Amino acid sequence: MKKITEFTREELLELQEELEKQYEEFKAQGLKLDMSRGKPAASQLDLTNGLLTALDDYHTESGLDARNYGVLDGIPEAKKLFSDLLDIPVDKIIVGGSSSLNLMYDAMTRLMLFGTQGEKPWKDVKGIKWLCPSPGYDRHFAVTEDMGMELIPVPMTAEGPDMDVVEKLVAEDDTIKGIWCVPLHSNPLGACYSDETVDRLASMKTAAKDFRIFWDNAYGVHHIYEEVPLKDIFKAAAACGNEDRILYFFSTSKITFPGAGIAIMASSLSNIAEIKKHMTIQTIGHDKLNQLRHVKYFGNAENIRAHMRKLADALRPKFDMVLDTLDAELGETGLASWVTPKGGYFVALDTLPGCAKETVRLAKEAGVTMTGAGATWPYKKDPKDSNIRIAPTYPTIEELDKAIHLFCLCVKLAGVKKLIGES
Amino acid sequence: MKKITEFTREELLELQEELEKQYEEFKAQGLKLDMSRGKPAASQLDLTNGLLTALDDYHTESGLDARNYGVLDGIPEAKKLFSDLLDIPVDKIIVGGSSSLNLMYDAMTRLMLFGTQGEKPWKDVKGIKWLCPSPGYDRHFAVTEDMGMELIPVPMTAEGPDMDVVEKLVAEDDTIKGIWCVPLHSNPLGACYSDETVDRLASMKTAAKDFRIFWDNAYGVHHIYEEVPLKDIFKAAAACGNEDRILYFFSTSKITFPGAGIAIMASSLSNIAEIKKHMTIQTIGHDKLNQLRHVKYFGNAENIRAHMRKLADALRPKFDMVLDTLDAELGETGLASWVTPKGGYFVALDTLPGCAKETVRLAKEAGVTMTGAGATWPYKKDPKDSNIRIAPTYPTIEELDKAIHLFCLCVKLAGVKKLIGES
Repeated sequence: MKKITEFTREELLELQEELEKQYEEFKAQGLKLDMSRGKPAASQLDLTNGLLTALDDYHTESGLDARNYGVLDGIPEAKKLFSDLLDIPVDKIIVGGSSSLNLMYDAMTRLMLFGTQGEKPWKDVKGIKWLCPSPGYDRHFAVTEDMGMELIPVPMTAEGPDMDVVEKLVAEDDTIKGIWCVPLHSNPLGACYSDETVDRLASMKTAAKDFRIFWDNAYGVHHIYEEVPLKDIFKAAAACGNEDRILYFFSTSKITFPGAGIAIMASSLSNIAEIKKHMTIQTIGHDKLNQLRHVKYFGNAENIRAHMRKLADALRPKFDMVLDTLDAELGETGLASWVTPKGGYFVALDTLPGCAKETVRLAKEAGVTMTGAGATWPYKKDPKDSNIRIAPTYPTIEELDKAIHLFCLCVKLAGVKKLIGES
Repeated sequence: MKKITEFTREELLELQEELEKQYEEFKAQGLKLDMSRGKPAASQLDLTNGLLTALDDYHTESGLDARNYGVLDGIPEAKKLFSDLLDIPVDKIIVGGSSSLNLMYDAMTRLMLFGTQGEKPWKDVKGIKWLCPSPGYDRHFAVTEDMGMELIPVPMTAEGPDMDVVEKLVAEDDTIKGIWCVPLHSNPLGACYSDETVDRLASMKTAAKDFRIFWDNAYGVHHIYEEVPLKDIFKAAAACGNEDRILYFFSTSKITFPGAGIAIMASSLSNIAEIKKHMTIQTIGHDKLNQLRHVKYFGNAENIRAHMRKLADALRPKFDMVLDTLDAELGETGLASWVTPKGGYFVALDTLPGCAKETVRLAKEAGVTMTGAGATWPYKKDPKDSNIRIAPTYPTIEELDKAIHLFCLCVKLAGVKKLIGES
């Protein structure tokens, strides 16, 4: 089959007419579908409804009354649950409230206001920069933008950020203070960091002594097609004396309820001590009843893994639907490329350069909301205007069927119009 | 009866011997009691155990799935509940997580990092000072100390901070950026701000354009002996164009469960818009299921008030016990003074100057932990070493009986030793 990118002008014009007709038919359906955010579907949340009534007692294992004040960094059994799940020692773990984003934001404000390990507070350092592997997660980029840092995009590969680029940048510039990382099933690419990437991040020489890796393992147990292992970055960093470099984040937002889950952070003992010094001023403690609720519901880490397998079974048909449709509709066209993720929450698609915004606009106009084009890049500026994040989890399979077909049509229509304009 | 302060040296020595004997008898009992923190007793928490199972559905009134992501500033029915309870318009309210201290800390970090209403971020202002009406709440003082501000103690009266002092200070010095206020049943004095105090705080001229009142109405519905009205500071401030000056905080920590309650903040529409701009970067939203749980449990504001009357009934015997014992044991001695609170969580007692630390040390040695002497002052430095915070809520009435008798004995013993040393 001839690729659309190789069509003559006449063929393109003919195709455009046909696509426009199909597009008008879609529009006439009056769709109102949302593929914009990585939200679980209600049916997915139903799988953990037992959590709502899991709290049969309010005492912790040690007899502590979880209703009352106290326990800054989380009840021991909650720490143990996540320790077992993620293979991180309990004393390196802090259990927070319901939002890991909040833990990241607070970690960043502490670095700004107080600095870390005796280095200058970042508020007193001019022109701080932050590495943003792109495409990446818009809410990450927004945190560093809010702090007034300059965001430096770094190319992503299937194995993580391009480490040649990262190593060069951090070695030369001591105002580069850190990097965002989603090491497994990355948002939106679905990239999984290789052992080499983890090793290089852990061991690289950084001009800034207080360089920090924000290691957001948001999809650490969210395998859909394949259980991908992740090298232990704490061990890798400790081996080179860089353990303070790692701030690790995790949450149950996409395991239980996004609106009422449990978030954790983990770091070196020295960082944890430093963090608690300020955290004890910020709060008396996070919601211990919700921690206990999660502990009682799951019981142990293996039950979380078993639940994630059920969740994968629920999500796989949606990802199949998206990937099969992309293949069938766009596979041979030359108008788009994408990588099949092994897990996580997204499929990231690249249109022809200059076509992402128009694709998203067309979809929106026909009733399907996508994540805004450019959102996966710092300052929402995709230099090629080509990356679009597809979030298949929220719609029902019937809605998704319609939405992804319309989306493919919009990719084609935007691509064909672009080719005509250039021909 | 002759006051102990008027005793001769011989009388004092004789009394000391007798008190020492009583003290040794107490010590022999091997007590282990805690009157250090304002924690509710388990029996008090039992009054809202219905909250644990109040969640019979996870949909909000508008049909929103509270398990999922979304709703940055709280579900509408939670806003309405607190709006009705506190007489604050819903659109001036943000519902947060479980800790109002956390909301205050975050408000402070935003002022530090970003400033407010176009004024310079506080991180860029040298030598910021903060007014701390004293005795006051140690955790408040700690927040401003953590930010590196200089803490200025301001005398407290039964009607709030000494406004002559406050007005003079804030008019002259534009590096004084704010003041901590607990307007009802203040921690630890039990002071209730008069209408005049509220009016003067709302209308006073401040050299700093971005002067802020952190209005922590922690005990706003915690009346024990008398329902004390509080003048509406928003209305008072709005009348003089100073509404942006007020940051209002409240929580259910001492209404339902301190470890798993709901916190709110309220401010002018202009401040709320500014706060949300950063808050939307910090989190996707706080625990909506817990908001819904509280809404379903209470139903309406009047039911919260009814619950607070029950709570007052439960607390009154403890406060009676403390106040009656203080009266009986110390009333005629001249060794201590205190004010009878109308509500709240504390009784604040002043020993003879220079006797607070020794009193607390003696009590500790005999097995009763009090709040550290000095804790009610900035930097934990009580210039007179005389203020001690008594927290009667946590122990059972039997424990309290022992603890408060021992405490009175320690006040006497420390006082008598001091008088002997000076005689």
